[in-house]
Amino acid sequence: MKSIVIFGAGNVATHLFNAFSGAKNFKVTQVYNHNGNSLEFFKNKVNTTTYLNEVVPAEIYLLALKDEAIPAIAKKIIHREALVLHTSGATPLSVLEKFEQHGVLYPLQTFSKKRPVDFSNVPLCIEANSEIALREIAELAEELSQNIYNISSEQRKALHVAAVFVSNFVNFLYTEGEEICRENEIPFEILHPLILETASKITDLSPTEAQTGPAKRRDMEIIKSHLEQLHGDRKKIYQLLTESIHNLHGKKL
Amino acid sequence: MKSIVIFGAGNVATHLFNAFSGAKNFKVTQVYNHNGNSLEFFKNKVNTTTYLNEVVPAEIYLLALKDEAIPAIAKKIIHREALVLHTSGATPLSVLEKFEQHGVLYPLQTFSKKRPVDFSNVPLCIEANSEIALREIAELAEELSQNIYNISSEQRKALHVAAVFVSNFVNFLYTEGEEICRENEIPFEILHPLILETASKITDLSPTEAQTGPAKRRDMEIIKSHLEQLHGDRKKIYQLLTESIHNLHGKKL
Repeated sequence: MKSIVIFGAGNVATHLFNAFSGAKNFKVTQVYNHNGNSLEFFKNKVNTTTYLNEVVPAEIYLLALKDEAIPAIAKKIIHREALVLHTSGATPLSVLEKFEQHGVLYPLQTFSKKRPVDFSNVPLCIEANSEIALREIAELAEELSQNIYNISSEQRKALHVAAVFVSNFVNFLYTEGEEICRENEIPFEILHPLILETASKITDLSPTEAQTGPAKRRDMEIIKSHLEQLHGDRKKIYQLLTESIHNLHGKKL
Repeated sequence: MKSIVIFGAGNVATHLFNAFSGAKNFKVTQVYNHNGNSLEFFKNKVNTTTYLNEVVPAEIYLLALKDEAIPAIAKKIIHREALVLHTSGATPLSVLEKFEQHGVLYPLQTFSKKRPVDFSNVPLCIEANSEIALREIAELAEELSQNIYNISSEQRKALHVAAVFVSNFVNFLYTEGEEICRENEIPFEILHPLILETASKITDLSPTEAQTGPAKRRDMEIIKSHLEQLHGDRKKIYQLLTESIHNLHGKKL
């Protein structure tokens, strides 16, 4: 049974903690967070601390922290014998290089406190500074998920941008759809099946193949009538995305 | 048993035809299409024709045609006693006004030939020129789906724009994600769970609530590092959507 100390008490830390509660070969022995209030959830479940000098030795230190906190906390950790990991998509492996064994365990998923996550489907991107460390991270990752990927810091940086496109920006387009419904007294639920089918379609067809709509068809009548209904940012987004679809699918004609 | 003639042989016509094969009170008696090749799928299943003057009388004429074909075909239909419907999101009810009973049955879903569709979940937007016609369309719609909405031409026009945002544009952002993966030799499958969870999240939380990411957090370090990786349309899209998220969530602070 290998021991883990989790640093952080946010969404990723909480979901990882829950996921480890079912693990056979790993056990979370402590959760550290600089703010005690956020530790409430953990208090009856595991030893907690708000002081870095109270952090206990463990085989694995898992830094599930905000990007900017990772180097700061890493600097202050005194036990250097642990395998030290961070969970960030946007932070290179090298910020942990003061530790002999270090690596990354980046769960590529969107986490909210309010929604449970089935970790067994979450892609885990792993990277390490040595074969030994990589093997240990792979073991850890396999306890949590069936989707393990070896991803370099360079690839992870690109993947983080891709995730912004397919998740944060996509969600913003949902917000635009919700707003259009609200302005026209239409319940937003009417769009749910379309949203779910559009997402699930790309597990069958590539998105390039799956593209439909007036921009792809270059249906100028419809595009004009849509633009007449739009203003501000929403109009700019419609224009830019329509042009971009033209540019992509035009090239392929 | 009410009789239906379907006009058109594209995605919507095909999926509607399949959905009606299980109906109790309605039966498709003929499929018309100007191009005979597209009728191949229907030929062993139902009477078909490529000539408008061979179209048989029926209780319902269902025009599952491209937007521009609807007024042209409507003009040429001689039997005026049928209830005449179109299935378009972007075409007003009034293009069918030469028929005493007319209406709209707009299925708000994305259809591909390659993917089966469970019609029972598809939202059907209905509209008609009279109470009698509306009752008949509602009966028809209830045979196909549990999600029936009374939607005016004005609302449908807005809904069609909303659908472009949450489906066509969203799919284009998936394409960008796929391209970023390809350029970095990462399998696109790694993004599937994130895409599916982002979609399914908004059936629980409103998209405004569900918004996460560097743009929402105004994490300028990350945004800068992402922009450095991007060029062309993709960079413009990143900038515009980031700004729009700022504008929306800034207002709410």
